[in-house]
Amino acid sequence: MLEDLKSRVLEANLELVRKNLVIYTWGNVSGIDRKSGLVVIKPSGVDYDELKVEDMVVVDLQGKIIEGHFNPSSDTPTHLVLYKDFKEIGGVVHTHSEWATSFAQAGLSVPAFGTTHADYFYGEIPCTRAMIEGEIKGEYEKETGNVIVETFKNINPLFTPGVLVNGHGPFSWGKDCDEAVYHSVVMEQVSKIAFNTINLKGNRNPMDQVLLDKHFFRKHGKNAYYGQK
Amino acid sequence: MLEDLKSRVLEANLELVRKNLVIYTWGNVSGIDRKSGLVVIKPSGVDYDELKVEDMVVVDLQGKIIEGHFNPSSDTPTHLVLYKDFKEIGGVVHTHSEWATSFAQAGLSVPAFGTTHADYFYGEIPCTRAMIEGEIKGEYEKETGNVIVETFKNINPLFTPGVLVNGHGPFSWGKDCDEAVYHSVVMEQVSKIAFNTINLKGNRNPMDQVLLDKHFFRKHGKNAYYGQK
Amino acid sequence: MLEDLKSRVLEANLELVRKNLVIYTWGNVSGIDRKSGLVVIKPSGVDYDELKVEDMVVVDLQGKIIEGHFNPSSDTPTHLVLYKDFKEIGGVVHTHSEWATSFAQAGLSVPAFGTTHADYFYGEIPCTRAMIEGEIKGEYEKETGNVIVETFKNINPLFTPGVLVNGHGPFSWGKDCDEAVYHSVVMEQVSKIAFNTINLKGNRNPMDQVLLDKHFFRKHGKNAYYGQK
Amino acid sequence: MLEDLKSRVLEANLELVRKNLVIYTWGNVSGIDRKSGLVVIKPSGVDYDELKVEDMVVVDLQGKIIEGHFNPSSDTPTHLVLYKDFKEIGGVVHTHSEWATSFAQAGLSVPAFGTTHADYFYGEIPCTRAMIEGEIKGEYEKETGNVIVETFKNINPLFTPGVLVNGHGPFSWGKDCDEAVYHSVVMEQVSKIAFNTINLKGNRNPMDQVLLDKHFFRKHGKNAYYGQK
Repeated sequence: MLEDLKSRVLEANLELVRKNLVIYTWGNVSGIDRKSGLVVIKPSGVDYDELKVEDMVVVDLQGKIIEGHFNPSSDTPTHLVLYKDFKEIGGVVHTHSEWATSFAQAGLSVPAFGTTHADYFYGEIPCTRAMIEGEIKGEYEKETGNVIVETFKNINPLFTPGVLVNGHGPFSWGKDCDEAVYHSVVMEQVSKIAFNTINLKGNRNPMDQVLLDKHFFRKHGKNAYYGQK
Repeated sequence: MLEDLKSRVLEANLELVRKNLVIYTWGNVSGIDRKSGLVVIKPSGVDYDELKVEDMVVVDLQGKIIEGHFNPSSDTPTHLVLYKDFKEIGGVVHTHSEWATSFAQAGLSVPAFGTTHADYFYGEIPCTRAMIEGEIKGEYEKETGNVIVETFKNINPLFTPGVLVNGHGPFSWGKDCDEAVYHSVVMEQVSKIAFNTINLKGNRNPMDQVLLDKHFFRKHGKNAYYGQK
Repeated sequence: MLEDLKSRVLEANLELVRKNLVIYTWGNVSGIDRKSGLVVIKPSGVDYDELKVEDMVVVDLQGKIIEGHFNPSSDTPTHLVLYKDFKEIGGVVHTHSEWATSFAQAGLSVPAFGTTHADYFYGEIPCTRAMIEGEIKGEYEKETGNVIVETFKNINPLFTPGVLVNGHGPFSWGKDCDEAVYHSVVMEQVSKIAFNTINLKGNRNPMDQVLLDKHFFRKHGKNAYYGQK
Repeated sequence: MLEDLKSRVLEANLELVRKNLVIYTWGNVSGIDRKSGLVVIKPSGVDYDELKVEDMVVVDLQGKIIEGHFNPSSDTPTHLVLYKDFKEIGGVVHTHSEWATSFAQAGLSVPAFGTTHADYFYGEIPCTRAMIEGEIKGEYEKETGNVIVETFKNINPLFTPGVLVNGHGPFSWGKDCDEAVYHSVVMEQVSKIAFNTINLKGNRNPMDQVLLDKHFFRKHGKNAYYGQK
């Protein structure tokens, strides 16, 4: 079942390793089949170099395992909250990539400092508030999703395809699992450049709004003119 | 047409990937044939590992496509301004390489801190002023070229073969596309060392002028004695 | 004798090179056979790419060479103190990996800044006090072990499987030599992210205790639910 | 002539590339045959991947070319001053490796912060004074050697096998060209760790002298006990 999606989710997980975003088992990718409402996700704690298509786990949006001989990623409830609330996304990625995680640990959003950022993220990459004791001791992974959704109350998740969970690390998403991985790579790269920028300029003032608009909409929306049509 | 130049421009684009200056489609190289006034440039938004010689786009100095089945890089108008104003250059490179981009995002020139810098750049690598709203909303990529040219009003572009566009990233050039790539690698390396130097010494005072002169002219001009004659 | 353990210890030493934790001969791994009380350790100053199974040295807990044609690592007495005092560990690793060593040289513990850290270390990775003259001029390597043990007077070494020796570098351990290497990789990665975090946030306040508890016990102890059972 | 030394000097030059200490032509290694007083050195400005044994240049201690179809490295006069003054060394290396160069550009010595440093350098790696105008405009490369020798007036070059030339970069040496390369790798690594240490602890106080003594003499001199005898 969902063999094609399983293959793509597997490949997307392996791409995280190739792009140096994860070591050991420190990341997970999922993809959703919106017609059936089923989600394919990496199993928990299995080494990347042993992962096979048939190890992928299929769950429904309530988290019930529909197919698979392994437990799904322990972060599955976070993925599910995102799929339920961000209705247009098709893939979700979580990593502990080092530069994005550094901002998450500092409790800081990544400011939009330049056009590299603006080509993909329409404004800062937000950092969530710290979670409170009741959330952490309760349904922790689900609450992690909730605090992300709360952060996006007034932000369009398609225009800002990633977030930093305070004290934890990055989540990203996209129209499918490949684009979600692409966005996790971009988030890591712009986090690194932002770190350097902060250590050079000594403040966190973002770029001009008009330059942000220019670059984001050069690549997105009906007036985009980057690439081949 | 211009088959040899197309091959060289293709190779120069791939060299950016091998030198770790670009990920995905984040860069472009062009070369000019000064006799015909035609420019060969990378197509927009095509993956580097799929690029073929026949995908290179030929444009004239007014930006008209003379040959090619793809749109040229969206940064083409910037390249053309540089070719028109810097009459002795033969190749142009644009990347979002991380260390040079960090300085661009901080709005800072790269100071000439040492002989590694002085071997290639005769003084600081300048950062342009920030572009204004009219420029950004107008012919943006052409205005990007104009603000570079404005920055070089009193600077010899052959002695300072690169620039940081404020809030954006580096452009470099050279006598041909290979040298332009070479200069983009050097710019990235000296930017990185300059970042470290600033974080060690706590100020931005450049090296002595006499040492700058010594190293630059040891490699450039009629009294150069580095390398084989 | 102990052929299987020798093979594993050899492989664990080579893994340090593959994970970029050591250059030249700057590290060593040992493993203990608790039944016989014998320890297998890398020989001193032999290149990693020439190491063979038969070069591994077998010593008893008093440091007497039981088998081997080479001298054991000069850090052997440190390993032995740890095996004697931390009775549940089965492997020990010492490296000069760059980020952990940076904290050791600064005389600073690595704060528990985020969940990447909390997944493996239950609280800060402690830095020992500086050793005093008598210890340095005496049985130096043995005293290095003693100062580690002193640091863990009130810390469970199974919950904090690593330490920074002040002005020196990291030691880590685990239930066997493979896990000890795994912990040395994790220590290096969280040290790097912690360095970035400090340089972003400007202080060293650790994460909330409740989040630390959550992540550590999600992976350890009887209520763990990460991975496959 | 000196075929064996030429081979070793060639290999030592290539090792600089493999250890990521140089890009393009940014480095050079030489070796001396003390019996004949002849020095073998890399030719100037020739790409590393085209270097062949027969391209190595043989000069005498006055800098006269004895054999070779290329010009020797433009830094040859610096090497010769070192061979003449440091009579026990057999190889010299110059690079622009990024971390050591960062300290040179900041005009700072690399403090002895920890045992990684103390295993090879008996005290700080000194940075020379800035050269004055007369020296720079005169016999520049020879004066570069002289300012190094001046820096070592009260330092044993065998105990401190490297230096930072102010505003320029590192030189290292050893009993032969291989050890000189080894020391250039170590210098780069301890420079990087020292940079991190400074950015963590906020000061430049070195380690205790007694720990420095312990580690240096554990590996050097008649009471050394590291490695195999």
